Amino acid sequence: MNNIKTAEILCVGTELLLGDIVNTNAAFLSQRLAALGICVYKHTAVGDNPERLRVALERALDCADLVITSGGLGPTYDDLTKETVADWFGRPLQLHEESLERIRTYFARTGRKMPVNNEKQAMMPRGAHVFTNNYGTAPALAISTDTEPHKTVIMLPGPPGELMPIFKEEVEPYLKSCSDSVLVSKNIYIFGMGESAVDEVIKSIMRDSVNPTVAPYCKEGEVRLRVTAKADDEQTAASMCDGVIEQICASEVGNFVYGIDVDSLEHALVNVLHEKGLTLCCAESCTGGLIAERITSVAGCSDVFFGGCVTYTNEIKQALLGVSAATLERHGAVSAETAMEMARGARERLGTDIAVSATGIAGPSGGTAETPVGTVFIGLSTQNGEEYRKLTLSAMRSREYIRIVSASNALDMAIKAATV
Amino acid sequence: MNNIKTAEILCVGTELLLGDIVNTNAAFLSQRLAALGICVYKHTAVGDNPERLRVALERALDCADLVITSGGLGPTYDDLTKETVADWFGRPLQLHEESLERIRTYFARTGRKMPVNNEKQAMMPRGAHVFTNNYGTAPALAISTDTEPHKTVIMLPGPPGELMPIFKEEVEPYLKSCSDSVLVSKNIYIFGMGESAVDEVIKSIMRDSVNPTVAPYCKEGEVRLRVTAKADDEQTAASMCDGVIEQICASEVGNFVYGIDVDSLEHALVNVLHEKGLTLCCAESCTGGLIAERITSVAGCSDVFFGGCVTYTNEIKQALLGVSAATLERHGAVSAETAMEMARGARERLGTDIAVSATGIAGPSGGTAETPVGTVFIGLSTQNGEEYRKLTLSAMRSREYIRIVSASNALDMAIKAATV
Repeated sequence: MNNIKTAEILCVGTELLLGDIVNTNAAFLSQRLAALGICVYKHTAVGDNPERLRVALERALDCADLVITSGGLGPTYDDLTKETVADWFGRPLQLHEESLERIRTYFARTGRKMPVNNEKQAMMPRGAHVFTNNYGTAPALAISTDTEPHKTVIMLPGPPGELMPIFKEEVEPYLKSCSDSVLVSKNIYIFGMGESAVDEVIKSIMRDSVNPTVAPYCKEGEVRLRVTAKADDEQTAASMCDGVIEQICASEVGNFVYGIDVDSLEHALVNVLHEKGLTLCCAESCTGGLIAERITSVAGCSDVFFGGCVTYTNEIKQALLGVSAATLERHGAVSAETAMEMARGARERLGTDIAVSATGIAGPSGGTAETPVGTVFIGLSTQNGEEYRKLTLSAMRSREYIRIVSASNALDMAIKAATV
Repeated sequence: MNNIKTAEILCVGTELLLGDIVNTNAAFLSQRLAALGICVYKHTAVGDNPERLRVALERALDCADLVITSGGLGPTYDDLTKETVADWFGRPLQLHEESLERIRTYFARTGRKMPVNNEKQAMMPRGAHVFTNNYGTAPALAISTDTEPHKTVIMLPGPPGELMPIFKEEVEPYLKSCSDSVLVSKNIYIFGMGESAVDEVIKSIMRDSVNPTVAPYCKEGEVRLRVTAKADDEQTAASMCDGVIEQICASEVGNFVYGIDVDSLEHALVNVLHEKGLTLCCAESCTGGLIAERITSVAGCSDVFFGGCVTYTNEIKQALLGVSAATLERHGAVSAETAMEMARGARERLGTDIAVSATGIAGPSGGTAETPVGTVFIGLSTQNGEEYRKLTLSAMRSREYIRIVSASNALDMAIKAATV
């Protein structure tokens, strides 16, 4: 089963066709396969219907070297992925003792007796490679043809909480071991420069990229560049990536890079605070808790993040943060002055090295001619004084978008303050 | 094109196959089609590849009465959905003057001149029904066969910000006008009772449901029951739904219903606070701002939500909320006493009618034998005094899950306090 070049993803589950759940598995698998250099041709989702599953499987195997299925591996009668695949390969199902033991242990750990129908989950097609599933009772397995053309099917459980870790821990090493070259990907995280501006600057690097390749991914206000190199060994591939990263960081884009392989602004922020031994707090109006929520989503943040205030009314901006009535009166709640006083008040009262704040109009209502929806002031206070950043986002943007981008700007200002 | 019973969803775009975006369109369309009584057989996603698109389209039209496509309607040479569909129907593309005018106006509104290649977007297959797209330049259209078997293809732009409103505003009325009956759906929102417990109680109602049907949907700690009735007119269908809702609310499940068609706990909470003229604030430790963030995600919350404190350290629990050193010393930060003092302190200092708090261990580290990961105390303070709720969530749950369920419990306690 060497030389897997193409894949299709086949998701099984009536809940997908009812729109009960969004198919995050297909996007996850596609990203990971792209990083392995495997080209995905098609996604298909079918219900728990054996005939439609069989047709979809046959069609997928007609086109691609590899088919990855998700779902349909449960203990009930309508879970039929394994049976359908075994049938295509002409391999009977046999009891896999190790899996039965694993499932029994799984139930024992939670103090329950294994229901009889879970035994079905330990039946595997002859010659299958069985992956360990530490996250549930469903099996995860691979099966390949013995003869040309080589075709492989990898079956994974449907719940993302099982599929994703199994893929990273078990399936990726398995797919890598089947390949004679190594792929390494590194990610450049960029904030404050739009996709088209990034594209404009590094157009030549991006367009001509063959090995390493450079691919852009975007979300609210952020750009991520994925650099992927292929080589005989990991070290060579990694240093090929590093060369391109150096080149990109030496360009104007470099001014907006907040980290390599750091996951998110909040992770980068918590990292730099740890590194520098600095502490942070925040004061939020329009973001309503989102800045604090994002920072505290990072496990281990409690050494560097002390807390924050969500001050939605003028009275509470005064009571909790000591913003002066005069400032609110003269400049309004949505102003550079209020933003900076909010940050200063939080820093003094919570006793941290750095404080960030946000005050603005997230919409959809509340805008005026002078201060339209999308106007947001981000404040920063450190021992060196205060500063602010004014955002003028389009009033056409959603409340959610305006809040996310505002919080991202606050995180970005805190990173820069901590890095200095 | 009457009597559309079955559909397939065909999404076009290489970005889907790269995993750059998650296919939220497929889930959205599936939910909406289910609510219209149309059964979805399959989802397919293909890249911007005309041959694979053609094959996928043919196969979809082989099986289903209706195919809804998303994507591939842009102005560039590789946007080929319309061309491929027109070809299948044997209908040449013709200039659609109204659409050209609409696209020109769209550019004019943003002060730009229309590039020549956008003219391509105004070409429509002969006999197509053109929907208005107020959200972008791409067209949205339907085309049907003249003879039996009746087949219809509806083409929609790929960006969810265009596809979703067009579907609700234009396509749903169109599909309804093709049907001789009316479907009405209502949603029962339930918190604090698990899916299997709900299932156990209303098993007979759910299993035997034909018209209205009752279908359960789940997310972290919540269950939603969708009740859908089919009748000749809207009023009859609505009152059929109401009958079943009454029946369900009269059962034990009724104790856990927080609203009908309310969208979320935070929406229900903001509604009830408005209704009762009550005000709220919060004090958060392990949820780190998530309670405030969820409340402030609801537009119009500022009349009833004053703010909150995120207190991640003991010192700040004391400084901002007045939690006593003795309580922290004697009972610890993760205790019923601390939770209640946090809520009381917030209510007194922010001057609201109700305050909720959360303190606990969200993990993955920080757990002890007495207070394992997943232990969370929710506090409530009103003018009538304090109370608390202790959660013991599984330590196997993710940090994210524990935080979401904790915040949901706080919102639920606030709803109950406001409702009394």
